[in-house]
Amino acid sequence: MRRIGAVELGGTKAVVGAAVMEGTGRPQSIETVRIPTTSPEETLARCAETLRELGGRMGGLDAVGVASFGPLQLDPHRPEYGSITRTPKPGWAGAPVRDHLANALGVPVAIDTDVNGAALGEGRWGAARGLDSHVYVTVGTGIGVGVVVGGRPQHGLVHPEGGHLLVRRDPARDPYAGHCPYHGDCLEGLACGPAIEARVGRPATELADDHPVWDLVGDYLGQMAANLLFALSPQRIVIGGGVGGRLGLLDRVRHHAERHIGGYIDHPVLTQGLTGFIVPPGLGGEAGLAGALALGWAHLETVSA
Amino acid sequence: MRRIGAVELGGTKAVVGAAVMEGTGRPQSIETVRIPTTSPEETLARCAETLRELGGRMGGLDAVGVASFGPLQLDPHRPEYGSITRTPKPGWAGAPVRDHLANALGVPVAIDTDVNGAALGEGRWGAARGLDSHVYVTVGTGIGVGVVVGGRPQHGLVHPEGGHLLVRRDPARDPYAGHCPYHGDCLEGLACGPAIEARVGRPATELADDHPVWDLVGDYLGQMAANLLFALSPQRIVIGGGVGGRLGLLDRVRHHAERHIGGYIDHPVLTQGLTGFIVPPGLGGEAGLAGALALGWAHLETVSA
Repeated sequence: MRRIGAVELGGTKAVVGAAVMEGTGRPQSIETVRIPTTSPEETLARCAETLRELGGRMGGLDAVGVASFGPLQLDPHRPEYGSITRTPKPGWAGAPVRDHLANALGVPVAIDTDVNGAALGEGRWGAARGLDSHVYVTVGTGIGVGVVVGGRPQHGLVHPEGGHLLVRRDPARDPYAGHCPYHGDCLEGLACGPAIEARVGRPATELADDHPVWDLVGDYLGQMAANLLFALSPQRIVIGGGVGGRLGLLDRVRHHAERHIGGYIDHPVLTQGLTGFIVPPGLGGEAGLAGALALGWAHLETVSA
Repeated sequence: MRRIGAVELGGTKAVVGAAVMEGTGRPQSIETVRIPTTSPEETLARCAETLRELGGRMGGLDAVGVASFGPLQLDPHRPEYGSITRTPKPGWAGAPVRDHLANALGVPVAIDTDVNGAALGEGRWGAARGLDSHVYVTVGTGIGVGVVVGGRPQHGLVHPEGGHLLVRRDPARDPYAGHCPYHGDCLEGLACGPAIEARVGRPATELADDHPVWDLVGDYLGQMAANLLFALSPQRIVIGGGVGGRLGLLDRVRHHAERHIGGYIDHPVLTQGLTGFIVPPGLGGEAGLAGALALGWAHLETVSA
């Protein structure tokens, strides 16, 4: 039995929780507290205080997992390990998220990107249970892609940034040049919520399910799915988020992904309209906090292994 | 000390070798024999016979590694594990490469794709030594991409097939529609040797280093490098092969990759013209057989771990 604290650190709010975990089962009840994301000092101090309080009721925490917005420094050999690196968010560039919480609480703190955390959570308790390699994609105000390989969140040079995959845009069909400040018409630049709004002049949430823009979005996400399959051969791709959860969108993504895969990869999961390959999340909006819990828990497993 | 047999099984020839390996060092001398690839029965029987002969001189083999053309069934839970799945190569669809050699020799046989093997070999003894996550790309009559994550060749739904990544083609600049029978203008369809020859009417080997087609090829491979970076964040990308080794090509790939990454990923390796990120192989033409040896060796490590 372990007592795990969790922080889902987002750009506008942090969700802090704690749970008693036994074995690999999903915790039955998680106490959570929401904290607005303001300055790093204030936000992290309030997160630490809340963790101390929630943990205190359980007799103290054994570890904390943090699933954070990024980009993050995830190389444990670097002094800035666990800090946010570059970000346009005022005050947060260089914020030492992990060190702040570890120093304040005196327990091990595991950290990863929000999407890597969510991928881990979906793999433990959600739509990718029991798989070795899978991908979690969130489509909302941005597009984030978390990758689990061999049961672990993937790091490397940095961490995956699949929201910025280059996709093919046909200017005759989609004259919108994209809104990514770095790439223009990369995946996020074309398929996230603000890019949809920029094309049609209304928030994506207000559009009918059969608005033609959804087929464009489905095509770009289908290209992403095909390229992720070609690049790393995940067993499943979970797609969620405020835009990704739109009714009917996943069917369009599946249709276009199948078209772009072009019958080249021979596997039963890629038949029947890809319904077993591209799937909605199993944890819904709880994937973030579940991911943070899973990160904290996985850290203790690694240490005791 | 272990005695390892190795088979690099290609579409036109198999290279068979054996070496005594100590620790993780690269074997100093490898005896090799070339065998033409004919029918599976004949080819595999001759591979087994040669392995028995080479191994006999060492006192018998402890394991064999096979780096094979594919696609391969690499799910150890499937009865067709270690067989070639679909291939246009006459007679080879379903060929039980691993089982044939294991039954003939009575020793453990590890198998992976030729490019996953080469990636492993480059990671042990070549241009990606000491790295955790890296990619090996061979550009020749086709394009193959091997992926190592956490020090192991990546499998998942199947195995990576990065040669078929979708890339962006500007029809005004490159009207060639591509030669991939599945995708037309995917990476391989646009940037492999035959695609180059189809555009200019002469083999790629005969073209001057400053022929304009090289800049197109560099762009497509640069898109591949950027998308691999976004998708899985490898620490290094090794590019070789008959076309990939062309003088000056890597500089073009680096230039276009940097352009497509667009400054979004912040890491020292991505400065200085990407010379430390996109590199030529360290093992040259020996990567295939070295990869097969590494596969055999890694198998014994896993078993004894």
